[in-house]
Amino acid sequence: MSLADHHKILFEPVAIGPKILRNRFYNVPHGTAYGVLRPSTWASYRAVRAEGGWAAVSAEFSSVGPSSDEFPLHSSDIWDDEDGRRHKLMVDSVHRHGALAGIELHHGGAHAMRRVSREPAFSASGLAPELPPPAGPLGTPKVMTVDDIERIEQAFADAAVRARDVGYDIVEVLAGYGYLFAQFLSTFHNRRTDEYGGSLENRARFWLETLGRVRDAVGDDCAIATRLSIETQGPWGHSIDDSVALVRMADPLVDLWDLNVGSVLDWGSDISPSRVIPEGRNLELFARVRQATKKPVVGVSRWTSPDLMAQAVRSGVIDIVGSARQSIADPFFPQKVREGRIEDIRECMGINHCISSLDRGNMTCAQNATAGEEYRRGWHPERFEPLSRPDVSVLVVGAGPAGMEAAIGLAKRGADMVHLVDSVDQLGGHLGPVVRLPGLREWGRFIDHRMIQIDKLPNLQFIPSTRLSADDVRDYGASHVVVATGARWLGTGLTPGTHEPLQGVVEGASWVFTPDELLVRGKRPAEKSHVTVYDAEGGYMGTSIAQLLADEGYKVSVVTPHSQVAAEGDLTLEGPAVRASLHSSGVAMYREVSLTSARPEGVIGVGEFDQPFSLKSDALVLVTMRSPIDDLYQELTIDREALHEAGIEAVYCIGDALSPRPLAEAMFDGHRLAVPGHDIGSGEPG
Amino acid sequence: MSLADHHKILFEPVAIGPKILRNRFYNVPHGTAYGVLRPSTWASYRAVRAEGGWAAVSAEFSSVGPSSDEFPLHSSDIWDDEDGRRHKLMVDSVHRHGALAGIELHHGGAHAMRRVSREPAFSASGLAPELPPPAGPLGTPKVMTVDDIERIEQAFADAAVRARDVGYDIVEVLAGYGYLFAQFLSTFHNRRTDEYGGSLENRARFWLETLGRVRDAVGDDCAIATRLSIETQGPWGHSIDDSVALVRMADPLVDLWDLNVGSVLDWGSDISPSRVIPEGRNLELFARVRQATKKPVVGVSRWTSPDLMAQAVRSGVIDIVGSARQSIADPFFPQKVREGRIEDIRECMGINHCISSLDRGNMTCAQNATAGEEYRRGWHPERFEPLSRPDVSVLVVGAGPAGMEAAIGLAKRGADMVHLVDSVDQLGGHLGPVVRLPGLREWGRFIDHRMIQIDKLPNLQFIPSTRLSADDVRDYGASHVVVATGARWLGTGLTPGTHEPLQGVVEGASWVFTPDELLVRGKRPAEKSHVTVYDAEGGYMGTSIAQLLADEGYKVSVVTPHSQVAAEGDLTLEGPAVRASLHSSGVAMYREVSLTSARPEGVIGVGEFDQPFSLKSDALVLVTMRSPIDDLYQELTIDREALHEAGIEAVYCIGDALSPRPLAEAMFDGHRLAVPGHDIGSGEPG
Ligand SMILES: Cc1cc2nc3c(=O)[nH]c(=O)nc-3n(C[C@H](O)[C@H](O)[C@H](O)COP(=O)(O)O)c2cc1C
Ligand SMILES: Cc1cc2nc3c(=O)[nH]c(=O)nc-3n(C[C@H](O)[C@H](O)[C@H](O)COP(=O)(O)O)c2cc1C
Ligand SMILES: Nc1ncnc2c1ncn2[C@@H]1O[C@H](COP(=O)(O)OP(=O)(O)O)[C@@H](O)[C@H]1O
Ligand SMILES: Nc1ncnc2c1ncn2[C@@H]1O[C@H](COP(=O)(O)OP(=O)(O)O)[C@@H](O)[C@H]1O
Ligand code: SF4
Ligand code: SF4
Repeated sequence: MSLADHHKILFEPVAIGPKILRNRFYNVPHGTAYGVLRPSTWASYRAVRAEGGWAAVSAEFSSVGPSSDEFPLHSSDIWDDEDGRRHKLMVDSVHRHGALAGIELHHGGAHAMRRVSREPAFSASGLAPELPPPAGPLGTPKVMTVDDIERIEQAFADAAVRARDVGYDIVEVLAGYGYLFAQFLSTFHNRRTDEYGGSLENRARFWLETLGRVRDAVGDDCAIATRLSIETQGPWGHSIDDSVALVRMADPLVDLWDLNVGSVLDWGSDISPSRVIPEGRNLELFARVRQATKKPVVGVSRWTSPDLMAQAVRSGVIDIVGSARQSIADPFFPQKVREGRIEDIRECMGINHCISSLDRGNMTCAQNATAGEEYRRGWHPERFEPLSRPDVSVLVVGAGPAGMEAAIGLAKRGADMVHLVDSVDQLGGHLGPVVRLPGLREWGRFIDHRMIQIDKLPNLQFIPSTRLSADDVRDYGASHVVVATGARWLGTGLTPGTHEPLQGVVEGASWVFTPDELLVRGKRPAEKSHVTVYDAEGGYMGTSIAQLLADEGYKVSVVTPHSQVAAEGDLTLEGPAVRASLHSSGVAMYREVSLTSARPEGVIGVGEFDQPFSLKSDALVLVTMRSPIDDLYQELTIDREALHEAGIEAVYCIGDALSPRPLAEAMFDGHRLAVPGHDIGSGEPG
Repeated sequence: MSLADHHKILFEPVAIGPKILRNRFYNVPHGTAYGVLRPSTWASYRAVRAEGGWAAVSAEFSSVGPSSDEFPLHSSDIWDDEDGRRHKLMVDSVHRHGALAGIELHHGGAHAMRRVSREPAFSASGLAPELPPPAGPLGTPKVMTVDDIERIEQAFADAAVRARDVGYDIVEVLAGYGYLFAQFLSTFHNRRTDEYGGSLENRARFWLETLGRVRDAVGDDCAIATRLSIETQGPWGHSIDDSVALVRMADPLVDLWDLNVGSVLDWGSDISPSRVIPEGRNLELFARVRQATKKPVVGVSRWTSPDLMAQAVRSGVIDIVGSARQSIADPFFPQKVREGRIEDIRECMGINHCISSLDRGNMTCAQNATAGEEYRRGWHPERFEPLSRPDVSVLVVGAGPAGMEAAIGLAKRGADMVHLVDSVDQLGGHLGPVVRLPGLREWGRFIDHRMIQIDKLPNLQFIPSTRLSADDVRDYGASHVVVATGARWLGTGLTPGTHEPLQGVVEGASWVFTPDELLVRGKRPAEKSHVTVYDAEGGYMGTSIAQLLADEGYKVSVVTPHSQVAAEGDLTLEGPAVRASLHSSGVAMYREVSLTSARPEGVIGVGEFDQPFSLKSDALVLVTMRSPIDDLYQELTIDREALHEAGIEAVYCIGDALSPRPLAEAMFDGHRLAVPGHDIGSGEPG
């Protein structure tokens, strides 16, 4: 295999100021929560992206000073030399793999949380930030004086020097996302009457001056870039027309444009869930500003397809492909394209586990178990250490995310033979039917990628349509058994908040449904009937089913005991769009309602203040809790004698069969079992 | 002054196993978010509490292993020797001041977030945790096998050894708060049919065995304690009767009981906001379990009054006063009681800024600016470094939180003369009228404490009822001027989310009110009329005013654009109680509604999905945004010549006049100005 002709354009080098990008793949700034807090984790994470062939690898937004402190969650600062030392570790590791290292200098302005520094927040005109509490800070930010502006400009220049001194090649100034410079650019925040407010030129002055200072400070040594969010949902940004003018104004000051869309209030426009926004959607916006610059343009747009990327570059709209998530999901994306190994690409699914986990303090990925584990566990996305003892034959029961990941890992590590057996005729486990839910098609990439790998691995065989009993397993002839039999949705209405079955629910009754019955067994309520979906879980399932049934013509209501519908969806940035879509599909939503009983005629519950709640409906879908399917594992491990006689050295339970969790964690389980640290063959049965 | 007779009982030493508490003040485990992440900050924070006279100083809950990882927000782990080294720094610093050092060994069980470790969660019976997403983890935890139980028991014993080895004197096992052991104790989580489930004895087995192991491991060297939450709101705990039996069962295994109430879902019962729960409320619960033990009992109950503490001890219900927040607010509480300096105590106000800031990554206090700054800024709650240049005469304009704090700090540092001038006749600034709002009486302690200090400081004079103009200030004769003139609530209806005045609002019209007009100027709508409170801020003000007006007989509605009423109140743990109280006072609440216009007859707005919203009402209270009152500062600093001529060396602006923020931050500003690092006399004017 080799580089396809129509992808060649992606491998042309591009000059950016004093530096040269070795190709057109630009790993845009994205946070990890490792930052200067966990410098080795950080360095190894970025190094693997450099190794995978990205031309530039960028650190996340890095605060230039205490008035923009975001410790401990967003933890890349470049305030002083101690920070610098931690950056250097990362920069050096990126350089070792021939990539340029970039940094994004940042000030949050009115949005900065300043939890530790406790400085007042800065703003253009003393208008409180649009991000509501508790996510945003409470209070009114300080109006920046001209002195403040001068000091912050200098802080950027100083940070740039610090960055240059530790070896960064590219210094970006973040003027996007509704942060400080974007606040000055937008009349939503900027009502100044001095030379920093009023006309667009004036509103741009702070940013332009800062770019100028940064350029003066390090422009001979570093490429100067700036990130501009060229469009924003809602009134808090600036118009695309303004963006065109802004690009024109700043063009002489930059060597590179890094364009995106969105703001702190619509992060989901930029870090776009595939459930909501298609790949390449930003291209027409970028086309608008293209005319205004002759400098190379980086643009992000949930790129995952090399064809679309090449097309975008050929069209001239962007010069360089910007990507955060595809680099998270597959650090070796550029190398695979170069080698023509398109089918080996681990495509980003747009599920946004990455950003939701970042917001919880540790960025991880649902496609790529190794993301964030390059240092701590020494995992590599492409290289698998040979098994210390390859003479193992492994039976993996269950070809869901956990089982697939374990089987592939063990096969790549050189196990004599791995059999992956499932009772159904397809790979993917619970995910198979899930990807047919509205908007979730791209989640199927999880399966597709692994299907291809399984096909390619000669020592790995998928055995479909075979349900194994404990006897079957013992008779199978495997030396090691991995049980990855998944989980089922409860049909009793038991919720995390009650731990009791819902009164009146008759499991399996014609008016009671679980996601499994709807999706796997294809059951449906009577046509056009009114369905209540009780979502006591809060993940994607409840609202997806509601959307599915609404699309099929049912009258649907969603009831949830949580304070928000699709509570978890707000962390994956799809919550607002999902709720809006349900609303426009006529779905009624009731939150903070706990059901207390259900009957064929409807449901009864209590509201936030124990107010009575009732709803007529003909059918009830229970999305409340999953319970592991671990009978096989229990049966096998209860009789160790029999295992021994069968020549089975170890039995492992992984994934949802061990503990039903989000996709990323089930998959992670499979990986953890397969790769060093938990060397198969060294374990005890059970 | 000297120790009062009726407080003497508090200074009796108490034997706990092999150790002796020097008095009855026990600083119970409480988190800081500094933990092993910021070991020096942590050590200095705890050291000052030891110095202030507490008999024991405890570290927060410290995870015993990766299945209970809470990094980065709750960051005290004791997994390995590297963690141990960080603990040792703290233990040594506590010992230097003659206090015992305690650690609370912790496992979160089903509630553990495991963001970094990515282990499956543990549980008694595989029931999903009651804490909903996004606060709690999504998914169903693993049922602990007997092997798992054995391993976790050993992890506790190993952690105890590690703790002993770095010098801890007291090892507590956390069996409260709904965490792992509490999950086993409660039938809400525990449905096991083996020897760890069923009868209370069985449910207690895991905990008792762990206590036994910890005792065997370190019981000769350390006092063994356990924290039990003896009552919980809601179904997820166990009954007080069970608590009595549990105390009886575990009594032989412990040297000390640490009792509290509550759970992860009702933290507010334990970390009780003064707005909702009175001091000493737990005493009658403790009385119930007292009979079951002869071991010393520590009990927390929002203690702040030495009289009530002594009474509680004298009553025999508790032997030792447990306190978290009073130690945060005043580390020197015990010493002040011992010296009879009751009036010098900085009483905890129960405002719960501490816990809300902890949840944002850095624990700080609204009463005590030095909390968390003992190491980084070298601040001490009691000792003030003399000014390098005491020949300064300082004029502080505005006696609100910021002005008071600055004036006191500067006076304590020995400034020749500090004048604190306010246009009104009382100390406290904006806080004065606030403390008359329903439930906020104890917030007045902020003022009371400072009033007493001001009275005592000979070089500090409060000048009431004097409004100063710029001319007055220049003529005052001060060498340094601190402007702390506060903020006002906007009367235009401009919100953080719109940055535009609310259409139809006529500032000052008879039907439009701001908090200032209601609270400061005492204005009121016509009796019994219907009032809409538009809370676009999300702090305590909107709901407090709604409660006030409801109490006064108005028909009240609260409208907020946020997804929850009193959004910030959920972080200070008063949200649910506040909403319940409003509801039971007949207040209607509408969330995710943005007003678009207002008229004397009512308000019009849009809901979450832009649905039309309208509400008839006769009056509108706008709680939307505060704006600084900084005219004086601007006038003064615009004419530097005049300042110079007046002999004024520097003018500072602090507190809400600089940037309207929560109380804690305004106060912090005052402190920061007064103490080293920002040495007055070294600054430039302006
Ligand atoms: C986990 C994560 C963290 C991010 N952090 C940053 C950041 O620190 N600074 C920034 O400008 N953009 C950040 N972004 C946005 C990305 O740079 C990028 O604009 C966005 O993800 C769209 O590109 P993609 O579709 O290739 O992911 C982040 C995105 C993700 C997924
Ligand atoms: C900021 C803060 C952090 C806390 N962290 C813990 C903790 O780590 N472990 C624990 O058992 N209790 C914790 N608590 C609860 C306290 O130990 C105590 O039970 C509660 O605050 C009531 O005591 P008080 O009224 O004296 O504050 C915490 C309390 C606060 C205010
Ligand atoms: N006894 C069995 N024999 C073969 N396959 C099984 C058996 N029990 C369950 N399975 C399969 O195991 C898979 C579990 O996948 P899934 O639920 O996605 O789990 P996970 O998310 O942990 O990977 C399903 O495809 C199911 O058909
Ligand atoms: N020109 C002035 N002269 C004297 N006092 C003033 C003047 N302007 C405002 N004040 C007082 O300043 C105080 C500000 O207090 P506050 O609003 O609580 O601010 P902070 O929270 O920053 O301390 C109020 O008590 C107000 O009466
Ligand atoms: S978590 Fe999902 S969206 Fe994020 S990088 Fe991985 S596959 Fe892409
Ligand atoms: S923040 Fe408030 S509740 Fe917490 S310790 Fe300080 S005064 Fe007490």
